[in-house]
Amino acid sequence: MANPSSSKAKIRTVAPKLFELIEGTVYGDLWQRELLCRRDRSLITLAALIAMRQTDQMRSHFEKALDNGITAEEIGEMITHLSIYAGFPAAISAALVAKPLLVERGLIAEDAAS
Amino acid sequence: MANPSSSKAKIRTVAPKLFELIEGTVYGDLWQRELLCRRDRSLITLAALIAMRQTDQMRSHFEKALDNGITAEEIGEMITHLSIYAGFPAAISAALVAKPLLVERGLIAEDAAS
Amino acid sequence: MANPSSSKAKIRTVAPKLFELIEGTVYGDLWQRELLCRRDRSLITLAALIAMRQTDQMRSHFEKALDNGITAEEIGEMITHLSIYAGFPAAISAALVAKPLLVERGLIAEDAAS
Amino acid sequence: MANPSSSKAKIRTVAPKLFELIEGTVYGDLWQRELLCRRDRSLITLAALIAMRQTDQMRSHFEKALDNGITAEEIGEMITHLSIYAGFPAAISAALVAKPLLVERGLIAEDAAS
Amino acid sequence: MANPSSSKAKIRTVAPKLFELIEGTVYGDLWQRELLCRRDRSLITLAALIAMRQTDQMRSHFEKALDNGITAEEIGEMITHLSIYAGFPAAISAALVAKPLLVERGLIAEDAAS
Amino acid sequence: MANPSSSKAKIRTVAPKLFELIEGTVYGDLWQRELLCRRDRSLITLAALIAMRQTDQMRSHFEKALDNGITAEEIGEMITHLSIYAGFPAAISAALVAKPLLVERGLIAEDAAS
Repeated sequence: MANPSSSKAKIRTVAPKLFELIEGTVYGDLWQRELLCRRDRSLITLAALIAMRQTDQMRSHFEKALDNGITAEEIGEMITHLSIYAGFPAAISAALVAKPLLVERGLIAEDAAS
Repeated sequence: MANPSSSKAKIRTVAPKLFELIEGTVYGDLWQRELLCRRDRSLITLAALIAMRQTDQMRSHFEKALDNGITAEEIGEMITHLSIYAGFPAAISAALVAKPLLVERGLIAEDAAS
Repeated sequence: MANPSSSKAKIRTVAPKLFELIEGTVYGDLWQRELLCRRDRSLITLAALIAMRQTDQMRSHFEKALDNGITAEEIGEMITHLSIYAGFPAAISAALVAKPLLVERGLIAEDAAS
Repeated sequence: MANPSSSKAKIRTVAPKLFELIEGTVYGDLWQRELLCRRDRSLITLAALIAMRQTDQMRSHFEKALDNGITAEEIGEMITHLSIYAGFPAAISAALVAKPLLVERGLIAEDAAS
Repeated sequence: MANPSSSKAKIRTVAPKLFELIEGTVYGDLWQRELLCRRDRSLITLAALIAMRQTDQMRSHFEKALDNGITAEEIGEMITHLSIYAGFPAAISAALVAKPLLVERGLIAEDAAS
Repeated sequence: MANPSSSKAKIRTVAPKLFELIEGTVYGDLWQRELLCRRDRSLITLAALIAMRQTDQMRSHFEKALDNGITAEEIGEMITHLSIYAGFPAAISAALVAKPLLVERGLIAEDAAS
């Protein structure tokens, strides 16, 4: 299953220094700092990815968000809130990435439109 | 076939309020207002999607544009015009989304490069 | 008063070839093509600038839009429509650029909030 | 002093329907919903604005964030976290908007570099 | 194998004038000018595509970069450098596009994470 | 005169960790690595800033580019090249930032349009 670690691992041979910065500066340092809790960091990371329409790296951060205590309902509400600030297409794209994950985890029902 | 309604339907279980805003505010209210005709609304919606490089939601708006009276030739010219303002890569990506739709509808010829 | 020509003139000594492309390819060729009328070209140019939040070059294109027959009311409606697709902050920024121009031309009333 | 209301008021004569949507849908409806608390909404709104580099509308949302209980230290940490996801230039631009507000409110010291 | 020419060919029937501008203005004129060497043009073209997160048109420009004398190691370092300016997600997406090309050309080793 | 150091200094009290990362990771580590020369780093940094339309932080990087051996003519050509990839408005905005610097340094003539 895709997660931040796996993306990280995949790019190691292409950009070894980038891999090292992700391991060290990003996950080893910034994400560990206590000035913002992990739930807050997940909220703002996802908000930034949604606003930048970076769909290809959202799935692993939605997983991380669930692991950091954000509920499926809060994910839906966050996406809805951001439709106002980043535009409805950005919000719809994000919802389409979140949906299969939330279905897989049994947090929302499968439906005919999936 | 993909269309705005189907994307809308897909996100309903993830973000029910977003679904409601799309049904109500976007299609039920804004698109119905007479201060701009539907052809103008299609033109500016597509221009915005092309400029934001939001390829995953262009197909349904190209369909809508054809339904609102924009011709295949005008779509090509609009994309060409926007290459200047949003960059050639944005224009090329948009043309690659429009192409299979225009071929399916018999509005341009299939070719060896498709 | 700022207009596309003046921006164009300002950059001539920095990037002479860019100046030449703007004079030749952009205004001398593309804007003259009849496949899209000038009103349509103004609509999509402005929509792209609004979606890209390129406020520093909007004023001259709002002027051009008025010259190409788009009314003050249509400008307001276009900005409102795009709030849905490009986000409310992009729309608000665009409205703040359009406002002094529309006031100067006597197309909307001056108000206490200006 | 700039705040979301004042921007909103300024655009009323340009785009009256947009003003109505901001009053109604954005502040009257979405910001009132309890599925996300106001502190969370401020966090994600600011993260989106920072990621989109929409500096001209950040000031009022930094004010709102302070009013919603986010501390000056948390604002600094949020900006730092987002430097990783949205790039250092986006983070620096945001810090330059936040700084005079934080100084005015006596939350950080004035310094020689301001 | 994807390359700039093939994308160009694909859009010819959709937007013939755009095709003509790409053949003429872009490759026939700008890329031939001696004020910047082709290696420099590849560097800045790729940097722009990475910063705009335009992944769907990167592959052919990575190929062009290799043809213009940029090494696999320099591609990795360029991506790493840009993680700072355009954000880590933009850099990771770019590395994931470059990787299969670099593996195919035998410039980096295949690995378990690919 | 504005330069990367001064922006860096200004944000120190707002986001001390960000300041530390800029000093350490960005300038102390990445910019020192020999896999890309400083001229190449200036080219790609500027290309990214131009493509992201981050005008407020371009001036110091144009200065840095001149210090790293990029000529005024190459700056003009780089901006012209990027007009194709990032759009003409992005290129024009960049040229308007570069112009006063190039005039101040006596590298291009002052003109009536400035």
